[in-house]
Amino acid sequence: MNGAESLVHTLLDGGVEVCFTNPGTSEMHFVAALDRVPGMRCVLGLFEGVVTGAADGYYRMTDHPAATLLHLGPGLGNGLANLHNARKARSGIVNVVGDHATAHLALDAPLTSDIAGIARPMSHWVQRSASADDVARDGREAIVQARARPSRIATLILPADAAWSPVTTERARLGPVPEAAAEPLDETPLAAAAEALRTDGPGTLLLLGDRALRERATRWAGRIAAATGCGVMAAFYGARLERGAGRVAIPRLPYAVEPALAALARWRRIVLVGASDPVAFFAYPGKPGRLAPPGCELLPLATPVHDAEATLEALADRLGARRVAYAGVPRASTVTPPDDAPLNPATLGALLAAVMPEGAVVVDEAVSTGRGFDALTAGAAPHDWLTGMGGSIGFGLPAAVGAAIGAPGRRVIALSGDGSAMYTPQALWTMARENLDVTVVIFANHAYQILRGEFAGVGAGEPGQRATDMLVLDRPRLDWQALARGHGLPATRVATPDALADALRRSFATPGPSLLEVVLA
Amino acid sequence: MNGAESLVHTLLDGGVEVCFTNPGTSEMHFVAALDRVPGMRCVLGLFEGVVTGAADGYYRMTDHPAATLLHLGPGLGNGLANLHNARKARSGIVNVVGDHATAHLALDAPLTSDIAGIARPMSHWVQRSASADDVARDGREAIVQARARPSRIATLILPADAAWSPVTTERARLGPVPEAAAEPLDETPLAAAAEALRTDGPGTLLLLGDRALRERATRWAGRIAAATGCGVMAAFYGARLERGAGRVAIPRLPYAVEPALAALARWRRIVLVGASDPVAFFAYPGKPGRLAPPGCELLPLATPVHDAEATLEALADRLGARRVAYAGVPRASTVTPPDDAPLNPATLGALLAAVMPEGAVVVDEAVSTGRGFDALTAGAAPHDWLTGMGGSIGFGLPAAVGAAIGAPGRRVIALSGDGSAMYTPQALWTMARENLDVTVVIFANHAYQILRGEFAGVGAGEPGQRATDMLVLDRPRLDWQALARGHGLPATRVATPDALADALRRSFATPGPSLLEVVLA
Repeated sequence: MNGAESLVHTLLDGGVEVCFTNPGTSEMHFVAALDRVPGMRCVLGLFEGVVTGAADGYYRMTDHPAATLLHLGPGLGNGLANLHNARKARSGIVNVVGDHATAHLALDAPLTSDIAGIARPMSHWVQRSASADDVARDGREAIVQARARPSRIATLILPADAAWSPVTTERARLGPVPEAAAEPLDETPLAAAAEALRTDGPGTLLLLGDRALRERATRWAGRIAAATGCGVMAAFYGARLERGAGRVAIPRLPYAVEPALAALARWRRIVLVGASDPVAFFAYPGKPGRLAPPGCELLPLATPVHDAEATLEALADRLGARRVAYAGVPRASTVTPPDDAPLNPATLGALLAAVMPEGAVVVDEAVSTGRGFDALTAGAAPHDWLTGMGGSIGFGLPAAVGAAIGAPGRRVIALSGDGSAMYTPQALWTMARENLDVTVVIFANHAYQILRGEFAGVGAGEPGQRATDMLVLDRPRLDWQALARGHGLPATRVATPDALADALRRSFATPGPSLLEVVLA
Repeated sequence: MNGAESLVHTLLDGGVEVCFTNPGTSEMHFVAALDRVPGMRCVLGLFEGVVTGAADGYYRMTDHPAATLLHLGPGLGNGLANLHNARKARSGIVNVVGDHATAHLALDAPLTSDIAGIARPMSHWVQRSASADDVARDGREAIVQARARPSRIATLILPADAAWSPVTTERARLGPVPEAAAEPLDETPLAAAAEALRTDGPGTLLLLGDRALRERATRWAGRIAAATGCGVMAAFYGARLERGAGRVAIPRLPYAVEPALAALARWRRIVLVGASDPVAFFAYPGKPGRLAPPGCELLPLATPVHDAEATLEALADRLGARRVAYAGVPRASTVTPPDDAPLNPATLGALLAAVMPEGAVVVDEAVSTGRGFDALTAGAAPHDWLTGMGGSIGFGLPAAVGAAIGAPGRRVIALSGDGSAMYTPQALWTMARENLDVTVVIFANHAYQILRGEFAGVGAGEPGQRATDMLVLDRPRLDWQALARGHGLPATRVATPDALADALRRSFATPGPSLLEVVLA
């Protein structure tokens, strides 16, 4: 057995069963090992941002890390943006990054770079295997890191000679990796939160993040709200928010500073369950960065090291709310907007809520177009909603690939702006190759629309010609039907509500991927 | 004047006249400053790898740094791979990377990351401006770095508040940056090289790299070769090799280990002018990493800190070769291969040599298909040949954008494999928007063909199904005509020599970009 084979066995033994790959020469022995050792599902991406974003989406749907296979420093560099998103989402990933054979490093060949240096900003753990004999130990530690609580980004640098050399010890395989346990609940914050809710429920907000956004956790939050009159909200970004008709209403904190300030203004205290002290996404001259009102008390109850569901259950118990009924969100209308309505964010949200199938997984990178979708889709059939977490654009299409692989049998709906989809369009090809049940919806406003708002928002005044040229994408217009077909996907362009509803329903009913370009009014 | 405006003035004063941009919210004040301060050509890329690759291509054609504008850590991350190539090409670039306002960093907003850490592996110089008052000084130092000899990658991190705050000192503008001087020639290596060439010219190879590949330097090399019988070769990668009919023959060292060893086997000594001790691109089990034969003497004569042309001129003078005639490469046939010939690397190279217009700039990322183009195109009309330098794929199309902007009036020919073009296809849109005279030629073999060779080359045996799936791109086939049209480019698919020659000639005669998909035999 060589080092590469030892690593494939180690990954499989550790429960890593999917590898998203974009290999090069230095990874050929690992590729050969994936061939010889059965059990790993290998998914090729034509760009590394697809690979890392897919691993993020996969983790979010399975709570299990995937591996990535990347080609030296530049290949890892191409994957950094989506590792940033994955890191902020607390998605566990084992990156396997090939490197030159150790003796070759001294020669400073063209592809030589500081791989560990490139890895560190987006990795919690970085290790270079010194030899084939170290690969199993290092690989296992990478899995332990990726399966920690919260999960972590682990980057294992695999020199070509560590991959191709024979393992000379007995330690070529080290067996399974146990599930990481949550840290026990702290009594003090639990008592404080219970006391606050008991004495001033209507002045208290439960702000949920991380795994507190899963349905079972939200049910406890709903019972607590019903018993105490407290509010419940989600942080703006959520790795996976289980929501929809019949479930507890968990409105997301708005993105923009003013509406976020307004949403938080009335609360005297905020109990944080898997969420952080809410802050503005960007700083703006003269606007606050922290969003909680002055004097608002913050009560950190559970962080991602804790079990959010158990925490909320314990809190409900203290409040005598175990058997309190909670109000589920009423089902949104299944009637789509009239065909003469303009295709704007409001009609799009209502239309989505009407037609989205039960169990759908929405990957949301709709940016400016999607700003109002949270309220508009709250009563859609029960579904999961995934957002970028780290705010780095180019997350949506790759994460949809990984979500579809992690949740077979469920329809993935990737909502994307046209500008945002252009960062990682190569994901379309992987959807086609793997015949994934993904409906890609491109909202074509032919602009970095969010930046047109931000240009005004930062007080920069009216954009002139040079600035406008950097904010508008309509010279030439991207043709998303052609782009989709170029990547092997069927595609439709729609410009009215009926056409969009028909195209969505057809896509949902047809196995495999397709793309809809929505021409905005 | 605010910090952003101070920086735009500083860049213009320092001779930086083009900014390749992919901005976000934190860069909006810089975008507004580009609006208000006239003089900067702003070129939008829809992905950051396009931006940094374009800056590399631009430098190579102008010997002047461009600026890039990138959005925080993930945006910089997306640009790293082509910064790696630029760094290895010694292309000077001033990266301007926006960051959160300083007070906002403490809040750990979603897009917060270690920008300096991400920058360092691919930058020679990294600085974060502490305030608007520091921007001019820091910006000027970035330009000094980018215009050093050899040029460097300088990354200036511009916090949003340093951009939007007013400059309170007199130092908002600091004036022009002087040209960096070459280091004087060293007498000792010059004497040693002259002595070696005088006593054993036929046993001595001049290995040229960096600016020794420019025509004026190669002429001196040709005279020295004519006078002494020495050999002249180029390193495998060259930032810009000026070559073609009538110029001195400078064959490139082959990429693969065996032919490279064979090409160097006969030399007793190698004089290095702007080149390094030649090494294999990758390590392979049982193959050497250094390519020079055992016992071969290495004589380092000039590094990129020196003036290559002046060095070779001085060497020629010592050898009495100032007025020796050199043999120019004979003009290759202008007859294209017969229409029933298969479109394979040999016919493609001959066809290119026949039709390439004088003054063309070839950006070569043809990878496996282009392996033989060096010899086949040596006698084409005089032209420049640019290769990736750092070996990171995704260089070609972006560098073609920058080369076209840096060399207006010349036809840029971007040769790309289909696999390699998929890393940064967004460059096509910038070609269309800027109406650049670029002919994109995609060699469609529907595979990572190079890796199919490397899989065998590393001794991994025959690929099975899982490995084949990672090496072959034909399920589904990419449709390059559709991809080109989706980005706004006219496109043609050709499968015979006549069709290719016609399409190339038509493209060369038509202003603006177009794409030809060459279906390989």
